[in-house]
Amino acid sequence: MSKSDFSQNLLASSGKPQTAADKIPIIARGAVSERAIKALNLVEKFVEEECIPADVLYHSQLGEGEKRWASYPPVMDELKAKAKKLGLWNLFLPRNHFTQGAGFSNLEYGLMAEYMGKSRTASEACNCAAPDTGNMEVLAKYGTDAQKKQWLTPLLNGEIRSAFLMTEPDVASSDATNITLTMKREGNEYVLNGSKWWSSGAGDPRCKIYIVMGKTDPNNRDTYKQQSVMLVPAGTKGVTVQRCLSVYGYDDAPHGHAQIKFENVRVPASAMVLGEGRGFEIIQGRLGPGRIHHAMRSIGAAEKALEWMIARVNDPRKKTFGKQLNEHGVILEWIAKSRLEIDAARLIVLNAAMKIDEKDAKNALKEIAEAKVLVPQMALTVIDRAVQSYGAAGVCQDTPLANMWAQIRTLRIADGPDEVHLQQMGKNENKRSREIREKLERQRQIGDEMVRKAGVRPVGKSML
Amino acid sequence: MSKSDFSQNLLASSGKPQTAADKIPIIARGAVSERAIKALNLVEKFVEEECIPADVLYHSQLGEGEKRWASYPPVMDELKAKAKKLGLWNLFLPRNHFTQGAGFSNLEYGLMAEYMGKSRTASEACNCAAPDTGNMEVLAKYGTDAQKKQWLTPLLNGEIRSAFLMTEPDVASSDATNITLTMKREGNEYVLNGSKWWSSGAGDPRCKIYIVMGKTDPNNRDTYKQQSVMLVPAGTKGVTVQRCLSVYGYDDAPHGHAQIKFENVRVPASAMVLGEGRGFEIIQGRLGPGRIHHAMRSIGAAEKALEWMIARVNDPRKKTFGKQLNEHGVILEWIAKSRLEIDAARLIVLNAAMKIDEKDAKNALKEIAEAKVLVPQMALTVIDRAVQSYGAAGVCQDTPLANMWAQIRTLRIADGPDEVHLQQMGKNENKRSREIREKLERQRQIGDEMVRKAGVRPVGKSML
Amino acid sequence: MSKSDFSQNLLASSGKPQTAADKIPIIARGAVSERAIKALNLVEKFVEEECIPADVLYHSQLGEGEKRWASYPPVMDELKAKAKKLGLWNLFLPRNHFTQGAGFSNLEYGLMAEYMGKSRTASEACNCAAPDTGNMEVLAKYGTDAQKKQWLTPLLNGEIRSAFLMTEPDVASSDATNITLTMKREGNEYVLNGSKWWSSGAGDPRCKIYIVMGKTDPNNRDTYKQQSVMLVPAGTKGVTVQRCLSVYGYDDAPHGHAQIKFENVRVPASAMVLGEGRGFEIIQGRLGPGRIHHAMRSIGAAEKALEWMIARVNDPRKKTFGKQLNEHGVILEWIAKSRLEIDAARLIVLNAAMKIDEKDAKNALKEIAEAKVLVPQMALTVIDRAVQSYGAAGVCQDTPLANMWAQIRTLRIADGPDEVHLQQMGKNENKRSREIREKLERQRQIGDEMVRKAGVRPVGKSML
Amino acid sequence: MSKSDFSQNLLASSGKPQTAADKIPIIARGAVSERAIKALNLVEKFVEEECIPADVLYHSQLGEGEKRWASYPPVMDELKAKAKKLGLWNLFLPRNHFTQGAGFSNLEYGLMAEYMGKSRTASEACNCAAPDTGNMEVLAKYGTDAQKKQWLTPLLNGEIRSAFLMTEPDVASSDATNITLTMKREGNEYVLNGSKWWSSGAGDPRCKIYIVMGKTDPNNRDTYKQQSVMLVPAGTKGVTVQRCLSVYGYDDAPHGHAQIKFENVRVPASAMVLGEGRGFEIIQGRLGPGRIHHAMRSIGAAEKALEWMIARVNDPRKKTFGKQLNEHGVILEWIAKSRLEIDAARLIVLNAAMKIDEKDAKNALKEIAEAKVLVPQMALTVIDRAVQSYGAAGVCQDTPLANMWAQIRTLRIADGPDEVHLQQMGKNENKRSREIREKLERQRQIGDEMVRKAGVRPVGKSML
Repeated sequence: MSKSDFSQNLLASSGKPQTAADKIPIIARGAVSERAIKALNLVEKFVEEECIPADVLYHSQLGEGEKRWASYPPVMDELKAKAKKLGLWNLFLPRNHFTQGAGFSNLEYGLMAEYMGKSRTASEACNCAAPDTGNMEVLAKYGTDAQKKQWLTPLLNGEIRSAFLMTEPDVASSDATNITLTMKREGNEYVLNGSKWWSSGAGDPRCKIYIVMGKTDPNNRDTYKQQSVMLVPAGTKGVTVQRCLSVYGYDDAPHGHAQIKFENVRVPASAMVLGEGRGFEIIQGRLGPGRIHHAMRSIGAAEKALEWMIARVNDPRKKTFGKQLNEHGVILEWIAKSRLEIDAARLIVLNAAMKIDEKDAKNALKEIAEAKVLVPQMALTVIDRAVQSYGAAGVCQDTPLANMWAQIRTLRIADGPDEVHLQQMGKNENKRSREIREKLERQRQIGDEMVRKAGVRPVGKSML
Repeated sequence: MSKSDFSQNLLASSGKPQTAADKIPIIARGAVSERAIKALNLVEKFVEEECIPADVLYHSQLGEGEKRWASYPPVMDELKAKAKKLGLWNLFLPRNHFTQGAGFSNLEYGLMAEYMGKSRTASEACNCAAPDTGNMEVLAKYGTDAQKKQWLTPLLNGEIRSAFLMTEPDVASSDATNITLTMKREGNEYVLNGSKWWSSGAGDPRCKIYIVMGKTDPNNRDTYKQQSVMLVPAGTKGVTVQRCLSVYGYDDAPHGHAQIKFENVRVPASAMVLGEGRGFEIIQGRLGPGRIHHAMRSIGAAEKALEWMIARVNDPRKKTFGKQLNEHGVILEWIAKSRLEIDAARLIVLNAAMKIDEKDAKNALKEIAEAKVLVPQMALTVIDRAVQSYGAAGVCQDTPLANMWAQIRTLRIADGPDEVHLQQMGKNENKRSREIREKLERQRQIGDEMVRKAGVRPVGKSML
Repeated sequence: MSKSDFSQNLLASSGKPQTAADKIPIIARGAVSERAIKALNLVEKFVEEECIPADVLYHSQLGEGEKRWASYPPVMDELKAKAKKLGLWNLFLPRNHFTQGAGFSNLEYGLMAEYMGKSRTASEACNCAAPDTGNMEVLAKYGTDAQKKQWLTPLLNGEIRSAFLMTEPDVASSDATNITLTMKREGNEYVLNGSKWWSSGAGDPRCKIYIVMGKTDPNNRDTYKQQSVMLVPAGTKGVTVQRCLSVYGYDDAPHGHAQIKFENVRVPASAMVLGEGRGFEIIQGRLGPGRIHHAMRSIGAAEKALEWMIARVNDPRKKTFGKQLNEHGVILEWIAKSRLEIDAARLIVLNAAMKIDEKDAKNALKEIAEAKVLVPQMALTVIDRAVQSYGAAGVCQDTPLANMWAQIRTLRIADGPDEVHLQQMGKNENKRSREIREKLERQRQIGDEMVRKAGVRPVGKSML
Repeated sequence: MSKSDFSQNLLASSGKPQTAADKIPIIARGAVSERAIKALNLVEKFVEEECIPADVLYHSQLGEGEKRWASYPPVMDELKAKAKKLGLWNLFLPRNHFTQGAGFSNLEYGLMAEYMGKSRTASEACNCAAPDTGNMEVLAKYGTDAQKKQWLTPLLNGEIRSAFLMTEPDVASSDATNITLTMKREGNEYVLNGSKWWSSGAGDPRCKIYIVMGKTDPNNRDTYKQQSVMLVPAGTKGVTVQRCLSVYGYDDAPHGHAQIKFENVRVPASAMVLGEGRGFEIIQGRLGPGRIHHAMRSIGAAEKALEWMIARVNDPRKKTFGKQLNEHGVILEWIAKSRLEIDAARLIVLNAAMKIDEKDAKNALKEIAEAKVLVPQMALTVIDRAVQSYGAAGVCQDTPLANMWAQIRTLRIADGPDEVHLQQMGKNENKRSREIREKLERQRQIGDEMVRKAGVRPVGKSML
């Protein structure tokens, strides 16, 4: 079968399949432009017809052993060329904050990112893969012209890749004030010493630039002014990539999650981003939209897992005890709950994206936190049901399920563990306490007065 | 303190409290008219300042023993007069389907219903209480002019109340084809025999009309054509209200949940709604919007429970082990999760409401089912956390929590238990199986071909 | 059918039904004496054949309104007479700590209490009902001869009932150091002032004695020496039973949960138990076995709920969508999980009971806490499934389910909320940290040394 | 530090650490012999002091790429020699069924297996590793003398390893009647054709014998008589190990999970076990004790995860937001719940083991199923909490947590997915329905009669 028949067959198979645009929740529809609708449908087509079929080839071209880190699968360049030609390039830079991107809103890009999340290759093919996306945002927002020319341009062109180096192995770096890598000014240079890990993407031979967070002023009383961000080219003298960390048993080559040592690494003062002591400001600006991207891709992964589950439980070869799996009530309940949980999570993320679009990420702290916490837990649950419905096939390399699960499991930890976000959300919500207590107290007083006037015996006694 | 000071104090207490309109999720904002915004703010004010303070009086006026069923609390008529004056009357009849209501969309009314759900008295005060709402919809949609004049007009005016009699004690009536009450044509009359229960509202002395589902043609091969709906005045000869059922110990007087016996009850043929055999059609049309109302009120109840929880854990008299409860991490997590779960559920319901607004309830079967299943489970969880944070006070009459929990617990059963809806949702979702299986098969074929052409060893083996 | 046919029929119906003894988990069997086996089988028979059938009569005899508190159902005295005759009396006082009881171990009595938990009337019929059990333990352990003669003897004979007054409405009394009722010595008397609530059993006209916890020395630096326990006869001047609290909508008459005011209540100094400042010591000794009793009765309630669920899903009148409920996979999974969860919880409680038997309740703090936390949550889950399988019938007075749920819901709060116990359990478990950290550190050191000696490249890096 | 100091230090660190024997739940203590107590303490010492430190070396010696499958880590032979010397060898064969083992009961061995589950190397070191254990049981129970001599003896000596080949890639083999590998008699030989996968252990170069399930009589009307079991030496002509399957990215080398093709594989008729058509009988006998072993090892893994969690949250380097993790209430609750859930699961397994000891595995079907379903879900929950408390370190190779999680995740699928077991458990429990319905009906009748005689108005109406 030629690929050109594919869409037609897809159409034929079910009479009237829904387009990606048809599947936008109606409550979000009004905020999506016609141009975005077209791009969204194109993204879905590109992902389903080009990227997903290429995923197995991508993994196969990776090979084994050291080879996995020495090059990258050639099919990626073919996909990138196709995406560029289709105009599906740098879709992530939102129109109200950047001029360099494709000009969509966070909401619109979020809808597209969902489809990218269904394929191992799609995000990178469209130059929308983390951590490059966040790094490009940092450079576009805070970089000098020279920094932009040197690093942002090739990143926007998809010629190089990048890594973001914040987390450290020896401290609890979910509290970012704990980081210890030192950046000491010496003349016109800074000297960097310390250790980083979970430097995702640093394993890739195309990764040319590290965006590094360290401390220029570790004794500043304001613990949020101690940090700075600098640009360190990969391969700078004194930088050693010590090893790559696995995620469950996956090495995630060629991307990788590196542990990197800095020993007297010297970089020119011009490599400083924004200025000394402004590291926190930079990373905070970086986090919001990235969480939306992760969340929407995870929703795509959950949708994919649900598709695979449905495919399995309708597989005529997989009857047990005389029944198709789709006839088992428990399985139908899994499917129904998965549908419901995915739909609820998607609305939470789209609402957060629109809240960012209204103003900026600070405007949407609550909504982003909700998405950050809800989505990975939902996706893990849905994927795990799919794994279970596949039996042993679900845990191995014959489905994308186990790998998707492992990837998304890290999202409950990355950018701060769920629990830290929940504590912060709880504290913020609790700020309403004075207002609430006063309101309830007044309601009680008025109510008591009404009962007194009416001369009846009160039922209950308000506790407040 | 006079009530007129109340709003000012509310305002004063927290600088800049959010209005109800401010709290509309941004993703829904665009679909809410200015007129609805105004009404919504007015509803919030009415509920918080008038209805909630009146709730204790309402309960106190109910009294004890038989008295609870003989009259109804006088405060209700005062509240109704106020609501009418404020224009907060019959808000529930959506503008695209009815002319008699206040002219709001389901989405807009949904937002208002949330606030009504925070008070025992608010829905009735605004003439928006079940089962009258659904019954008015039935009469407005399907009633003859005479039927409308006799029953719809006084219902719209809030002069009488009504009950809907479908469920039966001796069969599994979650499958409505199982009902057994017979309606036999004899000349110009029908003779009704059978038993109904959970006839909510039939305990109220103001309840004047029963909308009764029975079988006119129990042997019709089409099991969905056997049923008819008739209008039976309360007190018709042969009708006996046998007893009222409790809900976790609550009698819900004066409303009540009655068990009612029909022994040779004769009604004129003109009491038939729409025509013989059209009972299913009628009840199906009745269900959609009502589920949205229940769901939004439950969300209001959950918000109220969260407010009470926050009030408690900030109560300076309630320190344990040297700490305020709001300093306990577990409690903060409860608050955060409650916030998140409420917000997700609300989006699901608002999306369903908007889907109905787009066309009709049939258009929104999936979305309504999602709301039906998700919201009560969410609200029960949130309320139960609040109960737990109150300790013993939470289970008794001193907070509204235990009663709200019991009310909402019935929603997991009413209109079909969760499990029936989940099975149906699962089956619907599973209808995508052919389309999905074909898509995955084609993706696999193309992928295999790519791997073959590239001449590399494949990793994994697609299971499909 | 005469009652004498009952056992025979029971037997006939299934060939070979298991006795209560047969159902003892094998791991506990060895610790149960032959005498206990016989008593256990007798308890089951008494509960199933006498008490459960009498439950409806008990409720019916209670009547309505004020009458519910003025007397108690006459059937209770008949049941008590039967139980005494069968030797099923005061079974709860464990043989290694008391001489007054029937001479069983906590493990053995626990097995019996499970069956009592299946009936509203059984525990009281066997003089094994809370709070009398705990109060009799206090009197037997700490009472003077005079106190024993006056109060313990009639309690052991089932002639009077009693209440335990600790919890207070205005403080967070889950932390018992917070109680405020004052006990001031004046000459040969103490003067009591303060308020108590949740004084369970104080509603009963037979309740003659209150065991009251208060503060004799509120300024003692040792916050655990401020409290004392005194015996206050019901009806003492200055004592006012203000109202009874409901549990969800149940009033639990005639037992009741009273709010009681103490205004200058004078009691002789001889009413002091054990001595001033020894209140904590007394309540701590009181708590352990009582938690086992509650837990085992809750397990009985869960077993009863499971029986009712099975009865329902096999009811031929209750087919939905052409199937018996027992053919629905989801329902079968509920049954299976209920079986499993009940069995696991029972083992936890029996193990705790045996740990008490080995020495005393202090020996079993961890095990008792595990039972305290696990059992109510399990029972609530199982009962809620049964409610759901009954549909609307499950929430009302036509099954024992809703009432059982409400009763057990209070156990997540009584004797300290779950969360307080979990925090304490967590802290205790965390005391192992030094031992564990040292062990892991040594393992790491030895392991590193082995790797070094072997001259291979280490995989992973121990975090510890 | 020399290893000889280790125990002393362990002791010193905490005054009086509990021995393994001290930690036996009291309810099981009576059934454990003195000899077993000694062995148990020895097992703990061997695991903690020898095996766990050796685990990192074991993984390190495995190396990378093809090398991982070509040999096995030399440290294993050292550990085996030590275990043999200590008498910790073939502990698994229960004394009431076999003469070849160490003479312990299933309960006693279960206690030991828990400790083995804390180490990657311990089970194999004691010659107690799956699938050899089950295979040795099959050979000991059903093998001819020749079969025993050829295969059982070297297995008992730990000289060779083995695999069990049942699951097939193209069918739903959780229903074992679905298997398709054919075994055709031709003269004095059988010819085998078909495909197997998840043949665990077949990757190991020491694996010399496959125990293969196939169909000798695929058309037999009795679908449980079609299967036979044969012994096929690894390397037999026509047998191809095609690939090894991964488990969440882990290859589990050198053990491995192989996919194996049989093409006209010829084995002598003497390789048949027990006789044609007796395959089902053999695998059923094989399953019970193996599930106990898996379950107890999983409990050991959960205990280890809890130890690692406690170590982390007390790590002074890992403060966040000014607090040690052990001061966060949420973390303390995780620790407490983990303690409770592990303890409950252990009692379920020990009770099942004792039930097998009483007679045999058939006697304990319910209890084994409970252990099979409960334990993996519990262990996954506990381990996942530990992962979360470690943050990024938890998902990678620096802790044993991610790998343990992946291993145990397969247990929810192996030997039949949880859902199949739950359905079966539900059906079995539901067999009580007639007995229960009759009992409840009689109780209702007697109760109604009592109410009638007493002449009171009945409250409620029994539904049964």
